[in-house]
Amino acid sequence: MEEIDHLVADISEPRCDGRNFNQIRPVNFEIGYTEYADGSVLASFGKTRVLCTICITEGVPDWMKRDHVPGGWLTAEYSMLPSSTNVRKPRDSGKPDGRSIEIRRLIGRSLRAAIDLNKLPPMTLYADCDVIQADGGTRTCAITGSYVALKVAIDKLASRILLPDDLLLGAVSAVSVGMVEGRTLLDLCYSEDHNADVDMNVAMTDKGEFIEVQSTAENRTFSKAAFQSLLGLAEGGCKQLFALQKNALESNKR
Amino acid sequence: MEEIDHLVADISEPRCDGRNFNQIRPVNFEIGYTEYADGSVLASFGKTRVLCTICITEGVPDWMKRDHVPGGWLTAEYSMLPSSTNVRKPRDSGKPDGRSIEIRRLIGRSLRAAIDLNKLPPMTLYADCDVIQADGGTRTCAITGSYVALKVAIDKLASRILLPDDLLLGAVSAVSVGMVEGRTLLDLCYSEDHNADVDMNVAMTDKGEFIEVQSTAENRTFSKAAFQSLLGLAEGGCKQLFALQKNALESNKR
Amino acid sequence: MEEIDHLVADISEPRCDGRNFNQIRPVNFEIGYTEYADGSVLASFGKTRVLCTICITEGVPDWMKRDHVPGGWLTAEYSMLPSSTNVRKPRDSGKPDGRSIEIRRLIGRSLRAAIDLNKLPPMTLYADCDVIQADGGTRTCAITGSYVALKVAIDKLASRILLPDDLLLGAVSAVSVGMVEGRTLLDLCYSEDHNADVDMNVAMTDKGEFIEVQSTAENRTFSKAAFQSLLGLAEGGCKQLFALQKNALESNKR
Amino acid sequence: MEEIDHLVADISEPRCDGRNFNQIRPVNFEIGYTEYADGSVLASFGKTRVLCTICITEGVPDWMKRDHVPGGWLTAEYSMLPSSTNVRKPRDSGKPDGRSIEIRRLIGRSLRAAIDLNKLPPMTLYADCDVIQADGGTRTCAITGSYVALKVAIDKLASRILLPDDLLLGAVSAVSVGMVEGRTLLDLCYSEDHNADVDMNVAMTDKGEFIEVQSTAENRTFSKAAFQSLLGLAEGGCKQLFALQKNALESNKR
Amino acid sequence: MEEIDHLVADISEPRCDGRNFNQIRPVNFEIGYTEYADGSVLASFGKTRVLCTICITEGVPDWMKRDHVPGGWLTAEYSMLPSSTNVRKPRDSGKPDGRSIEIRRLIGRSLRAAIDLNKLPPMTLYADCDVIQADGGTRTCAITGSYVALKVAIDKLASRILLPDDLLLGAVSAVSVGMVEGRTLLDLCYSEDHNADVDMNVAMTDKGEFIEVQSTAENRTFSKAAFQSLLGLAEGGCKQLFALQKNALESNKR
Amino acid sequence: MEEIDHLVADISEPRCDGRNFNQIRPVNFEIGYTEYADGSVLASFGKTRVLCTICITEGVPDWMKRDHVPGGWLTAEYSMLPSSTNVRKPRDSGKPDGRSIEIRRLIGRSLRAAIDLNKLPPMTLYADCDVIQADGGTRTCAITGSYVALKVAIDKLASRILLPDDLLLGAVSAVSVGMVEGRTLLDLCYSEDHNADVDMNVAMTDKGEFIEVQSTAENRTFSKAAFQSLLGLAEGGCKQLFALQKNALESNKR
Repeated sequence: MEEIDHLVADISEPRCDGRNFNQIRPVNFEIGYTEYADGSVLASFGKTRVLCTICITEGVPDWMKRDHVPGGWLTAEYSMLPSSTNVRKPRDSGKPDGRSIEIRRLIGRSLRAAIDLNKLPPMTLYADCDVIQADGGTRTCAITGSYVALKVAIDKLASRILLPDDLLLGAVSAVSVGMVEGRTLLDLCYSEDHNADVDMNVAMTDKGEFIEVQSTAENRTFSKAAFQSLLGLAEGGCKQLFALQKNALESNKR
Repeated sequence: MEEIDHLVADISEPRCDGRNFNQIRPVNFEIGYTEYADGSVLASFGKTRVLCTICITEGVPDWMKRDHVPGGWLTAEYSMLPSSTNVRKPRDSGKPDGRSIEIRRLIGRSLRAAIDLNKLPPMTLYADCDVIQADGGTRTCAITGSYVALKVAIDKLASRILLPDDLLLGAVSAVSVGMVEGRTLLDLCYSEDHNADVDMNVAMTDKGEFIEVQSTAENRTFSKAAFQSLLGLAEGGCKQLFALQKNALESNKR
Repeated sequence: MEEIDHLVADISEPRCDGRNFNQIRPVNFEIGYTEYADGSVLASFGKTRVLCTICITEGVPDWMKRDHVPGGWLTAEYSMLPSSTNVRKPRDSGKPDGRSIEIRRLIGRSLRAAIDLNKLPPMTLYADCDVIQADGGTRTCAITGSYVALKVAIDKLASRILLPDDLLLGAVSAVSVGMVEGRTLLDLCYSEDHNADVDMNVAMTDKGEFIEVQSTAENRTFSKAAFQSLLGLAEGGCKQLFALQKNALESNKR
Repeated sequence: MEEIDHLVADISEPRCDGRNFNQIRPVNFEIGYTEYADGSVLASFGKTRVLCTICITEGVPDWMKRDHVPGGWLTAEYSMLPSSTNVRKPRDSGKPDGRSIEIRRLIGRSLRAAIDLNKLPPMTLYADCDVIQADGGTRTCAITGSYVALKVAIDKLASRILLPDDLLLGAVSAVSVGMVEGRTLLDLCYSEDHNADVDMNVAMTDKGEFIEVQSTAENRTFSKAAFQSLLGLAEGGCKQLFALQKNALESNKR
Repeated sequence: MEEIDHLVADISEPRCDGRNFNQIRPVNFEIGYTEYADGSVLASFGKTRVLCTICITEGVPDWMKRDHVPGGWLTAEYSMLPSSTNVRKPRDSGKPDGRSIEIRRLIGRSLRAAIDLNKLPPMTLYADCDVIQADGGTRTCAITGSYVALKVAIDKLASRILLPDDLLLGAVSAVSVGMVEGRTLLDLCYSEDHNADVDMNVAMTDKGEFIEVQSTAENRTFSKAAFQSLLGLAEGGCKQLFALQKNALESNKR
Repeated sequence: MEEIDHLVADISEPRCDGRNFNQIRPVNFEIGYTEYADGSVLASFGKTRVLCTICITEGVPDWMKRDHVPGGWLTAEYSMLPSSTNVRKPRDSGKPDGRSIEIRRLIGRSLRAAIDLNKLPPMTLYADCDVIQADGGTRTCAITGSYVALKVAIDKLASRILLPDDLLLGAVSAVSVGMVEGRTLLDLCYSEDHNADVDMNVAMTDKGEFIEVQSTAENRTFSKAAFQSLLGLAEGGCKQLFALQKNALESNKR
């Protein structure tokens, strides 16, 4: 493993798909893509498309009842359609694989940072993230799209029952960054992700706070300086995503 | 269980969604909905939407190798997204449930009637049918849409390797019919299906031959006369679907 | 797939085991074969032997309780002993295979047509169908034998508690028919079933109504005319089985 | 737990079913009960009935191939039909339960003592023991009946291929004994087994050697003297079973 | 299979590790090895090391509640660390294997003979036996060490709540014996166990009563005389173990 | 969720166990704790104890063979003994839970950063981390202890076969840091971890490079400034651990 101490590459050179190093892919949130879920958003980051839905169900998990935890709960599930990847991915037989479980837990924690569960009635919110097409960044697309679905679902719920104003704590978005052939890049597509030496996923709130920072060396270890660069890049990406989430939600109201 | 001997209801009375008893719902085939599968079609029968894909992989199942069966194979999988139904449907943990397994087998048999597997190179075609939204008739929508995806996939394959002209044997479509409150109805939506006394799924070839006839009494048994009426209604429905499949495939070529 | 439009073969030619095309195999119902179940019948269709038992247990499934469905329930299980087939069949590890699940569901639906579950006390009837020897037609033998066991079990229950007279709605039987080398045949044995182009299972009531019609093209598709011939043959077969069920039940009373 | 040091009860008092303390139940071996397995015996010890079959298949388990172990293999499976017990026993979902696994292993080891596996061609013998009706002693009935099926299967195999004369090492039988309300009893039926303080299963060869001795205190521990009494009783029981096996096999030849 | 009728070998010849035929390996009980369990003992028989813990939890199994069985319960689990064996043993995926299940049941029955469960409050005692290093005799080491942990746990419980004096019925220990190359040996290490013709595990109480005697012919069957020799050897081994258990418990009090 | 913008708490105040905020717990590496694995270390961080072993096996995973990936592989497993936690933790039935899977993947990635797998012969190294006692930081203790076991195992392997000098790339250690009641703390014990608002695990190389940074908001989100403080604290902790690993390995050589 070589170490990456400084960033020698020319970061202004465009990427395979023409983007700058600090540009996210075209993002879209198709609100109301399906109609049975309480919130439903087809989120896309470039070619990556994830159907993000929120289904609100009565009751809370057994562990909350047993431990008398007040409020509600939010849990996430994540799965890839077999046809979503370049080479067909067999369906999970039995439990989901390790990678899926990690991602489910990440999405769940990130979304729970957007909502004050203590103030929720005894309900369970299921965030289902089903990947329709995977071109890198499915977990960050899932988090970012699910927040939009969550906002829609809570607004809908608020039209039926009385909910506290501060139930939602703010928006949540997530983006990947990575070190690819010596360059720091924002929002990796699959081919970039595949070649990344360092891979980092960051989930933030729209107040600039962090929820999760997960940084993993794939081929090389990384220096503190590299880490800081990546973190800054991710902050910029999340800021862009917050604006796009806001736009989509406002267009939906009209 | 009461018996249904004759059909007293006025069959010209329109249905809840305004259709006539012998009308199918608005049908659409969005070809190329995703881009990694060899054939990809988002098929919709009214509100029912199924993503039908064909992925072609090298090699055949072990049982074909062991028994020296020549040619290729086609197998189908069917699954519903948790958010596709009115009340969230938990994901399969472990193997798919009995209903899904029955449907997988039905789709597989129906599609295998469309292709002369002996003439296929040693390949396995996966027909993945993932239900995005379920409003009745998901299995017939899946069969009908998958045939379109199969045609696209085989045409694409034929542009890469030499295939016999008569590899595809003709189009395949499927439709549901049922007896609801004394009336025979074509292409049931969920609320009709839910109230049906008799439920029947029919898969046919565009030459007017039958592949599968599955008729089940849910609340009442049914007479031979009722059975014949339903069968005739299904024949008419499949005819309409063949025309729509053809149109979609021709539009796609242009 | 060739089409079968008309039936050219001489249907009077005897079959490998000497039967006419419209003859069922020797049928036997050994009532009381085991003594712990509420009803127990060793049913045989030729060499095919299925142990059909009805066990009555207190209580109903959770979904009935949750949805406040009144009455009782009947569910069926089907399994083949490993030694029942010509080549040893490994035991199910984990859930039963797709074929077994389909058959369980078919048996359950067919038997539920014989009984007015709303009038049953909150009990669950288990119909266990265990194949001792398999020579084709195991599912139809299971349905036909299980009805006999059901009648015995309900009569026995009626001697202990008060039950409405019209709890049982009539007898149920089932038979297979098929198209083999251009001939329509009733009650296929394994070698005939194996070579069948079209395979059809029909379950009926003794009032001449249908419960299930499942018709599947194995190698060729089939015309409407062929379908009608097969259906008529099945009706005749079921009629013979109703007489044999009745005889067995009457002999048992004496 | 009280200790049982001496046997005070009057051992000549008859049992609930009229037997003496040292009498086995009526035993029967119905050879050729089914016809597809290489050996098939419906064995009964009183009301206990077990279908014992031997299926011979080509090839040996992977571990024998990997470790270059010469000869063949014999493995046993054991299962109870749901309707075999007084209260319906749910089918195994997933792996068999602990008790079934113990019994499978016991049957396998006992039968392997009857055959010199080194001298067997590279084949695997499956001994399937399916309990049709369970009234205590199912595992000993299974071992004793399976030996008869094994002898039939090997004789049949010997008529097709050349086998060494000394492939079979002798007969194997098994019987249960127990301490019930202070009395030592041979071949316990269910109600006796249920009340036994000590439960012991013994498998022997017809040369008077032991294969397995499994003795378990259920409610009380037991003294060495009690143990010796039980062992003697079991020896006597096995001797009776060897004679019955021999008779059945000789009648079958005629 | 040869028979072992008499014991011709010179039983005074020392074993590979210098022991006499009737000597157990160096035994140690490290009480309080971990601190969260109610009783915790690292037991070693030579190189074999098993961590034996007793965890006391509130409540009893469902079957005791349903059948209104008074008192408490004790259940045992047994597992080997992957690195405990000479060749790495893969972790159980899914249920434990057949051997582990047999051993769990044996440990549970043996420990339940040490305690009058009727006199226990409605609690469940978990005996967890995790093998740190395996050199033969892991099940007997587990039983013997778990009794020590059980005594510690009950004494600790007695300091918190009032328990009847005669809750514990006496000490329990277990040892293996075997016939190896014609010699009867006590407390087999792995290499001896691997070569044993007869393998026997005996669990006893400190009053000289037997709880379990499990004797299995691995390569040869065994005579009654051989059986008696082995049983006597095991009795001597258990006596030695009772003294060592007592010492360890007394040292711990000081 | 409140935000933590600055760190107001007095960081010099000692912790419940007397440590300073930037002190690790007493650390110990008992090399050669078991003797069958190629490397075996009982690692302890305070009361947390993890048995870390490396078992070297011939061959590589199937995916490496299929994709012709040169070199060897290292994979990690992690499991907690049921008795390791304050409240007994039931054993995994079926696959390990989500948390265990995440930790397995983390340990594997961290250790693979210590070794140039391309230069390893076609072998698979299993790092088994079995938690004997859990008082927080089990995953970081596992990584740090496993590196020591890895070094021992590779040195042992190098004494048998020729290995390149630069096979090992340097030491790897890991430590947890967290924000507890407004204070940044190094190497959290369970009670601290339980109350942490932010929880962060960092794995590093002895060259000061990062392998993994996983930072998770449990109750509050965290600012960039807080994140930087935690990262610095972790760097200091890893430095201390590298020194302790080195000492342990040197003492072992002597």
